[in-house]
Parts: sequence; C-alpha cells; structure tokens
Amino acid sequence: MDTTKNCFSDFETSNSWIKELFETIKKVLPKGPDIVPLYKPTIIGNEWNYIKQCLDSGWVSSVGSFVDHFEKDLAEYIGVKHVVATVNGTAALHIALKLIGVKAGDEVLMPSLTFVATANAVTYCGAQPHFVESEPVKLGIDFEKLEEYLRSNTLRKGQICINKHSGSPIKAIIVMHTFGHPVDILRASEICDQFGIALVEDAAEALGSLHNNRCCGGFGKVNAISFNGNKIITTGGGGAILTNDDELANQAKHITTTAKLSHPYFYNHDTIGYNYRMPNINAALGIGQLEQMAKVLLEKRKLAGRYVEAFAQFEGANFIDEPEGCKSNYWLNTIIIDDNKSKLLTQILEFTNNNGIMTRPIWTPMHQLPMFSEAPRMNLNVVENLAHRILNLPSSVAF
Amino acid sequence: MDTTKNCFSDFETSNSWIKELFETIKKVLPKGPDIVPLYKPTIIGNEWNYIKQCLDSGWVSSVGSFVDHFEKDLAEYIGVKHVVATVNGTAALHIALKLIGVKAGDEVLMPSLTFVATANAVTYCGAQPHFVESEPVKLGIDFEKLEEYLRSNTLRKGQICINKHSGSPIKAIIVMHTFGHPVDILRASEICDQFGIALVEDAAEALGSLHNNRCCGGFGKVNAISFNGNKIITTGGGGAILTNDDELANQAKHITTTAKLSHPYFYNHDTIGYNYRMPNINAALGIGQLEQMAKVLLEKRKLAGRYVEAFAQFEGANFIDEPEGCKSNYWLNTIIIDDNKSKLLTQILEFTNNNGIMTRPIWTPMHQLPMFSEAPRMNLNVVENLAHRILNLPSSVAF
Repeated sequence: MDTTKNCFSDFETSNSWIKELFETIKKVLPKGPDIVPLYKPTIIGNEWNYIKQCLDSGWVSSVGSFVDHFEKDLAEYIGVKHVVATVNGTAALHIALKLIGVKAGDEVLMPSLTFVATANAVTYCGAQPHFVESEPVKLGIDFEKLEEYLRSNTLRKGQICINKHSGSPIKAIIVMHTFGHPVDILRASEICDQFGIALVEDAAEALGSLHNNRCCGGFGKVNAISFNGNKIITTGGGGAILTNDDELANQAKHITTTAKLSHPYFYNHDTIGYNYRMPNINAALGIGQLEQMAKVLLEKRKLAGRYVEAFAQFEGANFIDEPEGCKSNYWLNTIIIDDNKSKLLTQILEFTNNNGIMTRPIWTPMHQLPMFSEAPRMNLNVVENLAHRILNLPSSVAF
Repeated sequence: MDTTKNCFSDFETSNSWIKELFETIKKVLPKGPDIVPLYKPTIIGNEWNYIKQCLDSGWVSSVGSFVDHFEKDLAEYIGVKHVVATVNGTAALHIALKLIGVKAGDEVLMPSLTFVATANAVTYCGAQPHFVESEPVKLGIDFEKLEEYLRSNTLRKGQICINKHSGSPIKAIIVMHTFGHPVDILRASEICDQFGIALVEDAAEALGSLHNNRCCGGFGKVNAISFNGNKIITTGGGGAILTNDDELANQAKHITTTAKLSHPYFYNHDTIGYNYRMPNINAALGIGQLEQMAKVLLEKRKLAGRYVEAFAQFEGANFIDEPEGCKSNYWLNTIIIDDNKSKLLTQILEFTNNNGIMTRPIWTPMHQLPMFSEAPRMNLNVVENLAHRILNLPSSVAF
C-alpha cells in the first residue's frame, strides 16, 4: 500500500466547490504560519511565573499549594462547590462514574458521537456503554428520541432503571456538550429524574460555555472536565471532577489519592484507590491559564464570529453556531457539509491538510469501533450520517 | 478521640535511647532548615530552561518532542531497548501487567511489604494480588521461602502455573527493590522460569541502582519505574514502562495513548485504551532531572555513607546497607530497630517528627489492609514483625 497516497497526496483538486470551501476557511484565519494548527494552547499570562515559583520551591509533585489554589479558582469560576483536580479528563470521568455507583454489569448511556475516552471510562468500571442518538444540528444527544427509547426499552425496579432486553441496570447517562455547544442539560436532568438515572456531565469540551447563564460542568451530580493541550485551558495533561455534594467531593479526593487515610506518617488505605492526583507543577500552569481564560474566550468568540460571517452565504456547508439561550466557548469550530457532498469528505481533508490548513473529521462513532460493536444501542441513523459530514476547522487563538 | 494527641503531641521523651537515636540521625544531617523533610526533589540543573522552552513552544501536552527525548535518554541510561513514559508509576505497572496478559481471575505474586499502588494495579486488571514473604535484612522477597511455597502450593498445567487451592492461574510476580536495594533478581528470574511465571520488575524505588553492574528496571519482561516527587528523579507525576521486547513496546505505546490507530486525521481505536501518556511539560522536567542524576546519586551515596558511619556503633538499630554485589541508589535511608525495641516505634516517630526530623514507618503490609485481607498469601511472619521495626530517615540531597 502506498501510504504516501493516503497521507495528503492530493495537493490539487479539480473540485471547484472544495477550492471555494478552502478559500472561505482561509480568509477567516489571520495571516500566520505556513501550517495553521487545529488547536494550539494559548500561553500568554503568568504561566511561567507560577511554574518557576513551583520549580524554585522544589515541590513539583504531590506536595505543594498550587493544586488547592487551582481547585479553588476553578470552583469559583464554574460555580460549583467542589473541584478535585486529576491527571486528565479520562481519570475524572472514571471516578465520577465510580462515585455515583457504576459497577460491573451496569450500563451507562452515552452518545456514540464522542471521543473514545468516555466509553473507555465506562469499561474501567466494568460497565457497558449503551449508545444513544444525536440530533443533527448542534450534535448533542437527541433527548426527544432518547425519552421515547427509554419509555419503550426500560422498566423501573424500585429506584433502578433496567434495560428490558439485557436485564442490566442503566445507572447513569453521560451528557456531552459537543465541540463546546451546550445541550439542553435541564431536559437531560428531567429525563434522568423521570427514569431514575444519574446525570454525569462530560464538560471536557465545554469549559466556559454557558447554559442559561450557568456554566457547563455544574449541572450533573458529578461532572468531569479536561485540560488536555487542545482544550480551552491546559495543564499539560489534566482534568477535574466537579460536584456540589460534600460527601462525594471527599470521596473523590480520597480515591484519587490512593485512598490513604489522613495521618502524619502511617500509611493506611481503606479501599482500592487510584493515583489520579494532578501534580503541583501542572496545577501551577493551570492557575496561569485560568487567569487568561476570559481573554481566550473573547478571542474565540471573535474567531467564531468571523466563521459565521464567512459561511453565511456559503452553499453546501453550515457553520455550527451556538444554541439559543446558550453561550458557546466555540472550542472546535465546525461545519456540517450537506448530505449530497458527504462523499467529498476525504478529499476535503486531504486538500486542506495538504495546503496548510489543519482540519479534522468527527470521531468514528463509538458503536463502529471493534471493541464496542456489540454494545447495546438506539437506532443511530443520524450519527452514522453525521460521521461523514463533519469538519472541524482551525480554532486556536494563538497562531 | 483527641487527635492532637496522636499527631506529634510528644515533644519530649523520657527514653534516653530514643534521644540517643535522634542525636545520631541529627548529626548526619547538614545544618539546614528547622524541619528536615523525608524527601525533597533536587532541582539543580537545566529543568527551568527545558520547561521554559516547552512553554514558549506552546506544546505542553500530548504534542511535542520532549517525551520522545526523555524516553530515549532513559532507555540509554538503564540499558533497555524501549521506554514508554506514563503519567505515573501506577499506570506503568497497570500496563506492564496487561501486556504480559494478566486478566480477570488471575493471581499475581507480590510482596506484602510494599506501597499500595502495586496491589491496586493488580486489581485494575481484575486480578488478585497473592502476597509473599520478605527477608528480614534487605527487605526484598524471600526467594528461598517463595520457591518452597510454590513447590508445595502450585501445579503446572501446560505452560501455566496454577494455585492448587484457588485453582487460579498465577500469571506473574512483581519483584520490588525495597528502598532502592536490589534484590537477587537473577534468582527471581530462575524461579519464574522454573514455575512458568512472568517476571515484572517494580523498579519504582530503584532508578540508578545496580545489580551485578546492570541497572534495575531492565531484568523483567516488562518493568515499571516511578518519577513521583519523592523519587530519585521527578517529572512532577510520572512513570515509565521498560522492555526489551519490540512488540510489547509498540503495544505499550498504543494502549497508553487511547489505542488510536496512526492516521493524520481519522480517529479510530482498535481496543480499550488508556490516557496514560506523560505530558510534554513533565517530560521536559524529566530531561533536566536525568542530566543531574549522576550528581544526585553521588550525593545520596555520601549521605548514606554518613548514616552507615553514624549507626556503626549504635546499639538497638541497624542501618540497611547495600547488598553484596549491588549498588543501591539509597532512595530512602532506613534503619531496622531491634525486636525488643519495636514497641517504641510510635514514640520514635512522634519524637523525631515533633522535633524537626521527618521520619516514617514502612507501609502497613498489604494483607493487613481491609480490601486485601482475604487475598491469598504465604505465611507472612517476617513481614508482620518488620512492620513495627522499620524507620525511614531523611534522604534528600536538597535541604
């Protein structure tokens, strides 16, 4: 196989619509480097000062005050009572699921159209992901179809929602704000109450996004966020567990720090724990990043505004704008290509990436990955259609 | 309960032996701060420069060249073919066990006298830790007793070693170099060959230690190391998987990076993966630390030498010196208190910690923790006795 052929071999295209699309994207982007990345962190504030302080102190690891400081600042920003910083968003989701009692044999509802970490986190609990359908405009869960599906396919045994077909408890739903666009999280909450399912918000992509003036990441019982390098703010690697529940917050801190019982020198642990604590040096970076976030969000709105304008008159693709009543962080700017152009996706990807503008398709839907192909699921026609029509566009504010 | 009473209430002691012990430790330590920590990272080289470079590049997370560079430098130092850097030592152990095929229902032999992360990592695979006895001088596994135990309690079914009593396969043994003192790893290797058990070296504490002039961390089929803040070098949080096997190294890289198939833009994953990759900024710190390691090891030998001298004539406790034919990194300097003085351990801990010298007992043995109390195990009389007789002494070279 000629792998060069598969990796950006087409520097030219005879398709005039693809050329036009390319020029539409290009005119949005500031003149900058030869290759415009999809996402590059914006490190423009006190990050170096805090990291230098941390290095100078010597306490770069599990001792030191930057983690507490970062947790406090983030809790205040999001408006939740407790934040527990972790090594990454996957770890945060894993522990969020454990805290609400997800166990071996359970099922957890989640979108098929998401990043694989979410499905993996479900399996770390010994549970099974159960995939739900997306709506075709903002790409979040289709709550109308979900409600109908749950009505027909589940029954209630006491407090527990049971999958009629598998007989397994459906313990939780993970709701994700795709590319930073808030879903109707209050509707999600109503459905959870109605069917006896716990709500976990996967706000990995939605730091700084607002639903009815409330920050994403503060709605579910326990929620998760990510500070990977391609997110709104980064700690190198990092994530956080968010909750308003005092007891769950204590448990989160406890089991992310090897479940060690507090004592000045004796080493006792009372349950299986994890080494998921964010190191002090990464938290130092996070504090600097958090200080700059308002500025970053503002710049991201400006960039999204330019995309909105550029695509307003463009035929054949729609830019995803923020949902009504919501404020998006516009994490990844995204267009949805018209159905009749979906066959062009690979050509678009090749042409744009070859010519200095990094673009990306959406993730392969979870139910189409080999390890999840047998997992329970709704009809996923919309997801399967969308998978060939989505293009992420350069979204950094640092070029 | 008066918790103040339990936390360093005794600033005085009427026991003259404890006073003498305190003075013996004190005279080893350089005049420095009011409180001498047990272990503080030594950050004395190019760490600032590399981290600043990393920040300036913007690539602090999963993109960037510091991780590859760190892995290459470490592989060269240890003398193994492949290193895969991870978020921490626990993650490295987890993946090491998965790579050699540890699965739900298996048992993994490991010392009861170790840090809880090792036993936790076994449970992450769905397997059961099976605890083995330690020898009373250098605190490693007692291989003589182990061999006898395996002869009496296991049988061979084809290539697989079976626990006669539980019927479960014993897939692996995790061998740990306690406090940096190398165990007889070649003996461990012989026993593994004899009984059909895979050898995993937990070299978390033994970076820079040598057995017969070969670095610890290079003996087992897949091995793990830690760069936590209290280790010989630190990356904030961090660890590494070490192996000479090309295929296992590929798998290690693959499943620690979400099992994503290599492609410039499509997101496909072929198995359950983990988000265990070390961030670029932590690797930048690691490269600086690795450059300084020879100097740190030299200073640690000098400090250990002063402890050896101070305790040579001291009655009632023995300093653990490096095993014959080995070179220890003297990670944590340690004394073993005479049996008839074991009742004084808590008093010693209180008095030393209250008076500015941080000391620590050994970890509570794993089989005495509630979550592992039912796990299969050898007779652990030596471990139970040692648990009350071990005192870790200040071991930093940065005060």
